[in-house]
Amino acid sequence: MSGERRLSFRAGELAERLGLALRGDPSTRVTWVGTLTGAGPDQLAFLANPRYRAQLAGSRAGVVIAREADVDGYPGTVLLASDPYAAYARAASLFQPTATLQPGIHPTAVVDVSAQVHADAAVGPLCVIGAGSVIGAGAALGPGCIVGEHCTVGAGTRLVARVTLVARVRLGERVLVHPGAVIGADGFGIAMDADMWRKVPQLGGVIIGDDCEIGANTTIDRGAIDDTVLEEDVRLDNQIQVAHNVRIGAHTAIAGCVAIAGSTRIGRYCLIGGAAGIVGHIEICDRVTVTAMTLVTHSIREPGEYSSGTPLMDSRSWRRNAARFRQLDAHFRRNRER
Amino acid sequence: MSGERRLSFRAGELAERLGLALRGDPSTRVTWVGTLTGAGPDQLAFLANPRYRAQLAGSRAGVVIAREADVDGYPGTVLLASDPYAAYARAASLFQPTATLQPGIHPTAVVDVSAQVHADAAVGPLCVIGAGSVIGAGAALGPGCIVGEHCTVGAGTRLVARVTLVARVRLGERVLVHPGAVIGADGFGIAMDADMWRKVPQLGGVIIGDDCEIGANTTIDRGAIDDTVLEEDVRLDNQIQVAHNVRIGAHTAIAGCVAIAGSTRIGRYCLIGGAAGIVGHIEICDRVTVTAMTLVTHSIREPGEYSSGTPLMDSRSWRRNAARFRQLDAHFRRNRER
Amino acid sequence: MSGERRLSFRAGELAERLGLALRGDPSTRVTWVGTLTGAGPDQLAFLANPRYRAQLAGSRAGVVIAREADVDGYPGTVLLASDPYAAYARAASLFQPTATLQPGIHPTAVVDVSAQVHADAAVGPLCVIGAGSVIGAGAALGPGCIVGEHCTVGAGTRLVARVTLVARVRLGERVLVHPGAVIGADGFGIAMDADMWRKVPQLGGVIIGDDCEIGANTTIDRGAIDDTVLEEDVRLDNQIQVAHNVRIGAHTAIAGCVAIAGSTRIGRYCLIGGAAGIVGHIEICDRVTVTAMTLVTHSIREPGEYSSGTPLMDSRSWRRNAARFRQLDAHFRRNRER
Repeated sequence: MSGERRLSFRAGELAERLGLALRGDPSTRVTWVGTLTGAGPDQLAFLANPRYRAQLAGSRAGVVIAREADVDGYPGTVLLASDPYAAYARAASLFQPTATLQPGIHPTAVVDVSAQVHADAAVGPLCVIGAGSVIGAGAALGPGCIVGEHCTVGAGTRLVARVTLVARVRLGERVLVHPGAVIGADGFGIAMDADMWRKVPQLGGVIIGDDCEIGANTTIDRGAIDDTVLEEDVRLDNQIQVAHNVRIGAHTAIAGCVAIAGSTRIGRYCLIGGAAGIVGHIEICDRVTVTAMTLVTHSIREPGEYSSGTPLMDSRSWRRNAARFRQLDAHFRRNRER
Repeated sequence: MSGERRLSFRAGELAERLGLALRGDPSTRVTWVGTLTGAGPDQLAFLANPRYRAQLAGSRAGVVIAREADVDGYPGTVLLASDPYAAYARAASLFQPTATLQPGIHPTAVVDVSAQVHADAAVGPLCVIGAGSVIGAGAALGPGCIVGEHCTVGAGTRLVARVTLVARVRLGERVLVHPGAVIGADGFGIAMDADMWRKVPQLGGVIIGDDCEIGANTTIDRGAIDDTVLEEDVRLDNQIQVAHNVRIGAHTAIAGCVAIAGSTRIGRYCLIGGAAGIVGHIEICDRVTVTAMTLVTHSIREPGEYSSGTPLMDSRSWRRNAARFRQLDAHFRRNRER
Repeated sequence: MSGERRLSFRAGELAERLGLALRGDPSTRVTWVGTLTGAGPDQLAFLANPRYRAQLAGSRAGVVIAREADVDGYPGTVLLASDPYAAYARAASLFQPTATLQPGIHPTAVVDVSAQVHADAAVGPLCVIGAGSVIGAGAALGPGCIVGEHCTVGAGTRLVARVTLVARVRLGERVLVHPGAVIGADGFGIAMDADMWRKVPQLGGVIIGDDCEIGANTTIDRGAIDDTVLEEDVRLDNQIQVAHNVRIGAHTAIAGCVAIAGSTRIGRYCLIGGAAGIVGHIEICDRVTVTAMTLVTHSIREPGEYSSGTPLMDSRSWRRNAARFRQLDAHFRRNRER
């Protein structure tokens, strides 16, 4: 970390900025964040999960964010929060080094004459911006981003680096897109025609709402006719595949490597576990949780948690049990006959 | 879509171009495509799945492509097709805006002196073309594509943007490759040697047949000794992994996020569902369908549909049943003893 | 392959270089590698798996690397090795064309004034190197690589092409990273705060040990507070997702499309099969093998092989058996009652 400028905050200043009650020495100064077990006297840590309460006693952290109920008898400096994780998130953002992209267009960027780049926007080295595209106020494109034709990048939106918007993509405001993401590539539309595949033109676009986050190497395809849509505050981790004409409801969070097939609709405030699969043309209602690596094969109409799969076993036991899976139906039939 | 030029067609003109019978007013003019429920009077829609026949009555679409049997009593203008989806695919391609890449090499592209670029080919901004590579007539490389050494891009082939061909990759004619695809990276070959991994050099190439399509962020590794091969008209969706020395037969279509391990051979006219896995060193015969998220663990010698996995359940029921999976073999043994 | 320079070796020279005993004609000259069935008289092949012994008799390979026990009666020229696959790996590396990157910084690269690039390092066309980053001796960045701020690329490390190091990434020596890999993107940290997601700043880095290999389009996120760590000689295939604060032990090899959730620790000398999933906050001890597409849902404390899933079946049989999975617990309860 040598070479990065560090900020520093006194505990009293943090209490004020974050609107939290302080217990202990307001002059304690912290310059970075740390874990409860790893932080030193100049670092800020947090205790959110009561399971880790035992770590507090031995912590050398200068300041700790915690629930009042969890700091009984702890003599150190504490910022009291009803939700320590959310409070930590706000605190940590104070320490985050600000990006160094300068407003303006880097001389190595290639910008079409018909594109409109706001004077406050930053377009980094080796970016390409195509015909008819619009880059909003305060938007920032890191190095190597490609914005195709007829795309819109909303105010305050940041493409970290090497993001590709293919065509007809509309990103809202304050969207954050990580490297390698590809938004607006053709959906997978093919029709068998005289024993050959014929490509079905993909003519729709992609609409991404305000405050969404799109992970590294995630792909979101353009719609076949209508658009593919992410409502506001949707959070996608890395390597997720969102097929054409999917619609994802506001505030839904999806973990890495999830595959979502075409025309499926996912509700609001859903949580989809890593590497889950969701087949096409179904609907998942609001507030559904899907556990890791589950395959969702039909619509879900009741909020709650859903799963599929089998438990982890040593392979020898697994082979013995898995062989019986093949015989289940026969076994059931035999049993009923008796 | 403001700023894009729109074409327009009369119904009679579409009938003639597509070789379809017309019922209704040949002068009806359409300028874009739409869904049955969303299209307006200036849009072309289609009805392929009889399940959606009820939507026809309320459709405001100017022209509809449909089977004769499905339009009984519908008063609007119809193009009659025995396969409405394939006919729609052909119709929609008429409306597709043509790419604006100009033939020639963009001044910001870096092209090795020993590379051969056809005079009709287009090489977009910030592309790199390595030693000994050949770009064919009418081929188009969108922005940011990297073509390594000793690669061939066939006539009429299009790399949309930011595609990487690493080395010894041969793309046929009319191939379409979407952004983020990496073709020709080293296969995963390692040998344990004195408690360390030793890399096994990957010296083969990749051969992609004519009319293939390769999805966004899909990876196809070069062979270890021989080549990795996709025969003609293979269609790969996004985020598929094709390991070294795989061979995929002509006209096979593979949905997103499928993982195919090394040296496996897949037949012709296969359909592989999303997020399926296929282990290495096996053979799948022609006309096999694999359902989503299935793991193919052994060779398949009979055409047909194959699956693995367990059904979706609410997590509480799932946990109860999954716990029993561990006890299956013991249960079967107990039962036989009785 | 026209245009690539080919080396050639006599069998006696190979025996000497590789430290292997020779049987047959030391003057036999080979210019490339081949498979047992495909190699011609000027090619070097190997026989590692005794299952393929029958292929030896008909092989036209000029020289074969094999175990003494497997070449009984074979009249051709043989290099005898106790581990033919590892010996082949060493032999094949002699034939591998050397990369043509020249030391120095390509004029189209954009290098921050505060970055340090060793005089022996090669920085290819259209690379970007950010503030405070260091590129070591003999390191090579192929075309289109982006190195963010405060990153280190160790001596002899090679980024093949279009690799992205986002920020605070430290690569050891002799690391090999394939195209499309994204190392150091933000981990997926979000906290619900007043019905909106709030981003938890990701302030840690990524540390990659010496001799690691990172596959195409693989993503390795930076830590939330502490670093994400790969120890030395970790081998990752393509499209793997490594979440924030994961730690992977030395000499572990992971096949394509594996998803590893946050804060999980994987031991040394583990082998993780393709498309497996590993949930967060667990520990896997040394020398664990996980079979393809298994979901690891809890810590593993004993070396050995682990699995989950169900066997592959034709879909009709599968549907019948899978339906019974839903009834397993009820069935067990009924049975005990009897």
